[in-house]
Amino acid sequence: MQVSTLRNVLDANDLIAKENRKEFDTHGCFVVNLMSAPGSGKTSILERTLGSLNGRLKAAVIEGDVQSTLDADRLIPLGVPVVQINTDPHFGGECHLDARMVRNALPGLDMDGIDLVLIENVGNLVCPAEFRVGEDRKVMVLSVAEGDDKPLKYPLMFRVSDLLLLNKVDLLGYSNFDPARFRANVARVNPTLPVIELSAKTGHGFQGWIQWLMREVAVASRGRGPCGEI
Amino acid sequence: MQVSTLRNVLDANDLIAKENRKEFDTHGCFVVNLMSAPGSGKTSILERTLGSLNGRLKAAVIEGDVQSTLDADRLIPLGVPVVQINTDPHFGGECHLDARMVRNALPGLDMDGIDLVLIENVGNLVCPAEFRVGEDRKVMVLSVAEGDDKPLKYPLMFRVSDLLLLNKVDLLGYSNFDPARFRANVARVNPTLPVIELSAKTGHGFQGWIQWLMREVAVASRGRGPCGEI
Repeated sequence: MQVSTLRNVLDANDLIAKENRKEFDTHGCFVVNLMSAPGSGKTSILERTLGSLNGRLKAAVIEGDVQSTLDADRLIPLGVPVVQINTDPHFGGECHLDARMVRNALPGLDMDGIDLVLIENVGNLVCPAEFRVGEDRKVMVLSVAEGDDKPLKYPLMFRVSDLLLLNKVDLLGYSNFDPARFRANVARVNPTLPVIELSAKTGHGFQGWIQWLMREVAVASRGRGPCGEI
Repeated sequence: MQVSTLRNVLDANDLIAKENRKEFDTHGCFVVNLMSAPGSGKTSILERTLGSLNGRLKAAVIEGDVQSTLDADRLIPLGVPVVQINTDPHFGGECHLDARMVRNALPGLDMDGIDLVLIENVGNLVCPAEFRVGEDRKVMVLSVAEGDDKPLKYPLMFRVSDLLLLNKVDLLGYSNFDPARFRANVARVNPTLPVIELSAKTGHGFQGWIQWLMREVAVASRGRGPCGEI
């Protein structure tokens, strides 16, 4: 009973996600769903990513938070369109974005000429992995400070992701995080998951991440015809 | 409609939580619900706490994880009873413990002579704050690596907690975390929330946390009569 209710919720979500995806495709937008635990550095990664892109891609951001516009406020000075979703209409708030929330945010986003939409999900390693929002790729962030055991404890997130950004590698010398053990744990739950080590603080590793983004956008764009074509 | 469904779920949960609490009380057990984001160091804090108690309190642990027994495996060598709850009977798993899960775990825990039950919740800063499990106190952990803005982004967790353990203060020099800004943010959402700064790695600050535990257990025990009395 509980399983079938969950299945229905996710099936209904998938239908709306497909609608979102169609709308993104119509505008030639490549969409990344960025997920992680709280405090792993998604917003800092976005800040440096938008700076590093340096106009090579025209980007927009959809910001998901339980409450506040703190993250959106950090991104607005970078001159990209930002739409805020707060998941807290009542009580504690939703712990993830779903397709309907993203759908409701779309009228606030002018997608003409946008190549890349970065969706920053609510900080949570569990439920965001279960809800498609209309993305082309799921990218997860894990911070070195969170420990190398996380793939085994939150396997679904690692299984559904297309790329893992291992952030805060500047802290490697100050924590018990063992990169070899981490890669072995990743391999146990998702042997084909690529990992890019980076630091939003120092900029280390950003070249690889930007190259990944540029390549993915280019490949998707070739599949769709010229970028922005409707 | 959505609000009233949520209310019913939480009301039903509260009823079971009260039953759990009665059972804990009957055995003279003081119960702490330990909550945080993934990787903030709950298990490391438990390891050092159990060592630091050094028999002054007889403790047991209920471990909540989506999957794996990794955390329980770390605690068993410390010679305390540990019961594991996995919240993943299907698909992605529940992102929090609820009262029913704890209830189902109780037959596996011999509470005779136990003064203190430490419940390690699933790593998540949102939903665990909404579900009582029968605890006397809610204690939240935040790691310095997660950033000083978290009270404003996940306010409910900070509002419902009775104590905040600020962990990984050994990383203070290597992050942008500003303790003064953090305390100001905490004060904005919960001005009476006590904060203990500590490091599970170095042991810094553990004296204050252990004193807090000893005092809370003693006060609760005086309210109930001799510890363990049924």
